Amino acid sequence: MDKSHLSLLCDFYELTMANGYFVTGYKDKITYFDIFFRDVPDDGGYAIFAGLEQLIEYIQNLHFDAEDIEFLRTKGCFSEEFLAYLADFRFSGDIYAIPEGTPVFPNEPLITVRAPALEAQLIETYALLTINHQSLIATKANRIVRAADGRVVLEFGSRRAQGGDAAVIGARAAYIGGAHGTACTLTDAIYGVPAGGTMAHSWVQMFDSEYEAFKTYCEIYPHNATLLVDTYNTLKSGVPNAIRVFKEVLLPQGITKCAIRLDSGDLAFLSRKARAMLDEAGLTECKITASNALDEWLIRDLLMQGACIDTFGVGEKMITACSDPVFGGVYKLVAIEDEAGNIIPKIKVSENPTKITNPHFKKVYRIYRKCTGKAIADQICVWDETIDENEPLEIFDPQATWKRKTITDFSVRELQQPIFKNGQLIYDQPTLPEIREYCQREISTLWEEVQRFENPHHYYVDLSWKLWHIKEDMLHNKKL
Amino acid sequence: MDKSHLSLLCDFYELTMANGYFVTGYKDKITYFDIFFRDVPDDGGYAIFAGLEQLIEYIQNLHFDAEDIEFLRTKGCFSEEFLAYLADFRFSGDIYAIPEGTPVFPNEPLITVRAPALEAQLIETYALLTINHQSLIATKANRIVRAADGRVVLEFGSRRAQGGDAAVIGARAAYIGGAHGTACTLTDAIYGVPAGGTMAHSWVQMFDSEYEAFKTYCEIYPHNATLLVDTYNTLKSGVPNAIRVFKEVLLPQGITKCAIRLDSGDLAFLSRKARAMLDEAGLTECKITASNALDEWLIRDLLMQGACIDTFGVGEKMITACSDPVFGGVYKLVAIEDEAGNIIPKIKVSENPTKITNPHFKKVYRIYRKCTGKAIADQICVWDETIDENEPLEIFDPQATWKRKTITDFSVRELQQPIFKNGQLIYDQPTLPEIREYCQREISTLWEEVQRFENPHHYYVDLSWKLWHIKEDMLHNKKL
Repeated sequence: MDKSHLSLLCDFYELTMANGYFVTGYKDKITYFDIFFRDVPDDGGYAIFAGLEQLIEYIQNLHFDAEDIEFLRTKGCFSEEFLAYLADFRFSGDIYAIPEGTPVFPNEPLITVRAPALEAQLIETYALLTINHQSLIATKANRIVRAADGRVVLEFGSRRAQGGDAAVIGARAAYIGGAHGTACTLTDAIYGVPAGGTMAHSWVQMFDSEYEAFKTYCEIYPHNATLLVDTYNTLKSGVPNAIRVFKEVLLPQGITKCAIRLDSGDLAFLSRKARAMLDEAGLTECKITASNALDEWLIRDLLMQGACIDTFGVGEKMITACSDPVFGGVYKLVAIEDEAGNIIPKIKVSENPTKITNPHFKKVYRIYRKCTGKAIADQICVWDETIDENEPLEIFDPQATWKRKTITDFSVRELQQPIFKNGQLIYDQPTLPEIREYCQREISTLWEEVQRFENPHHYYVDLSWKLWHIKEDMLHNKKL
Repeated sequence: MDKSHLSLLCDFYELTMANGYFVTGYKDKITYFDIFFRDVPDDGGYAIFAGLEQLIEYIQNLHFDAEDIEFLRTKGCFSEEFLAYLADFRFSGDIYAIPEGTPVFPNEPLITVRAPALEAQLIETYALLTINHQSLIATKANRIVRAADGRVVLEFGSRRAQGGDAAVIGARAAYIGGAHGTACTLTDAIYGVPAGGTMAHSWVQMFDSEYEAFKTYCEIYPHNATLLVDTYNTLKSGVPNAIRVFKEVLLPQGITKCAIRLDSGDLAFLSRKARAMLDEAGLTECKITASNALDEWLIRDLLMQGACIDTFGVGEKMITACSDPVFGGVYKLVAIEDEAGNIIPKIKVSENPTKITNPHFKKVYRIYRKCTGKAIADQICVWDETIDENEPLEIFDPQATWKRKTITDFSVRELQQPIFKNGQLIYDQPTLPEIREYCQREISTLWEEVQRFENPHHYYVDLSWKLWHIKEDMLHNKKL
């Protein structure tokens, strides 16, 4: 897919609406849109926000070349004035976003766009696509990494990914979520996520014997020898041949670091047996890598059963977030500006109260208890509010306002950062390792109760009193 | 993502194995690899094969530029001779494949690669990626199209797709599977899949009233007016406003074709009520489009309950194949050639008998009963076998060889076509509409029992006696 064409990677209605705003004179009306989500995948306690870097690239490259415009002309529904306007189109708005790697919760604005209506509308599809995709994979990877409980997790899923970007950029997101590396070479080349791998069954089959296949591999890669031991019979052939080769080829060179990989059979049973055989042979530094349809639940169960696995190679279930493969971020109008520049909040009602949007241009504070450093709650405020750390803060449940709590001894952090101002990038992007490290640090501020897989504690995402009153007023007075 | 870099879109082990074949002199050993799958997603009766066009493009573009090679050099594990070899690398092998759009079944070779070991190994990851992704989406789309029972199905999922390729190429696959169009503009621009769309809630919210939003839209797009009626209250506000605008703006122009779209609430109830209101107003040609978390089961249930829906907009559940988001195609060595050019079959055993591969260079025949035109079974044969349509043919269950049947009055069709010969493309690629039409035609040759969602009949995929004997002999004599 030609990257220069990403500008057309949008739902067709973005363009028909844009044309509509253009011909009716609404195109420069200033609008505010939020991206938020309603449910954490897999009923988890939090999600990991990711995908911002690709949104930034997209915004910076957003333009329509002659070929794009000629294609649009063939659709027969766009005005020539609009097509001429597209030829010079550049995004001129403001974008605020939570940094990549931040644990985030339902209903808080992850991204806020302030831009002329036409521009804000055009970027909807891709903005959602990149945030939904990478937040999905980062969130899933983080669950798998937590299950592995400190052991190495490698992303092995390219061949089962939903397209090339899913493989390459998905591995980036998995790294943010805590995976240690990937099999995908291109992700290493572009993003620096360390790529590695072992061997395929075909390597073993190519030689006249398993022993010969192993020996040849160790001779070529003595410092990085992970031997796949399940091609014929793991315990009767694979492990004994691996031990023989390690002793014949590696030990004489003084190399004690090596590994075997199990890719089928019962990984708890086989890994314990293999561990005993390796230890018996004196190969105590030989690691055991396991793969084969792993996910967080299987990894947790294997470890509970005493599986001797040092490294988990996780394929399809991570790269597709197989158990819940959709991150449901939405892009909703929350305010417009009138001619005088006043911000007029907008709301989308729904028969389902939990689907009603939070109106207005907003910001999000994360509140930490000073003595523990733990995050207590997030509070969504109107854009012009600030929280004074020196005053007691009352927080309350916006669905049940009698549930209140007054907090002292806290610090606050504003989550959204300015990314674009008047179309100019003003954000100093962290490196990928920095994002990954930040993610791990921020997760450590969450109570364990929030990190549980089953029925986790629901972290509080509250509204300020000011915002709550504005919302209530709009709902009661139907000022929609 | 830069397309010229797709050559590095491979698991790192493909490259370390390739380097290994290079330095050990195995690089030119002729190998045969099959792509096949073991289970139909969603326990369906068949899958739709797709993704070949992207594999062809990949093979034609496969090369390593200076930047790729420099990156590989930094990894510190490749020989300089190998890196020099990569600079001139082109794929020189043969590829056979089943045409896109063909209904396919577990364990039959969808693609067969005959190439020097090094080359065959390098293409593994991308070949699997494209076939797995597009076959997954084409198969899912076909289920949804079947559920819609002749009504229009549109692909609306870009914003929830797993990356850009998943959106753009996924919509291509959905079209092959029978979807009628897409919301993704870029899929139209590249592949000609008709893109269309309606409006977002933000359009309705942008105006001072729903009526004004609808009126403005109809004035701009009188010939393509689908009004989204659920922003405030579907039956009390949305549908009445739509009716008023259709009467005020469209009918005076003699336009009777129009539509409304329902995107929330109970679609069975709302669509019946809306249909009655539209008919009451004389707008009998106004269509009803529905969207909101649709999949094949919900569509089937809605239609069973008399929902008055003409068009289904299907988003996340189709573009991610949400209910079973992995197509498990694998790439297995099935034969090598000795120095004299003799083909030596190879087999991968497993403790699980159903996971044992079918060895050898093979071909697949589909057998049709002449009098009905219906497909009876597929038979996998050794490459040098032919089936004589004028002789009775005995087929048998390879897992239970006493289950036999002799067929007369049949015709056969060889499924795999030659695609590349000595690295040259020799396949005349059908257009996308041709593929889609072929798909529908081929599905009509399958018994309804195979098309059922729940517990479908397992279509027979048998082995020829010759192939069966070779496989049995290898297993018993451990000639692996």
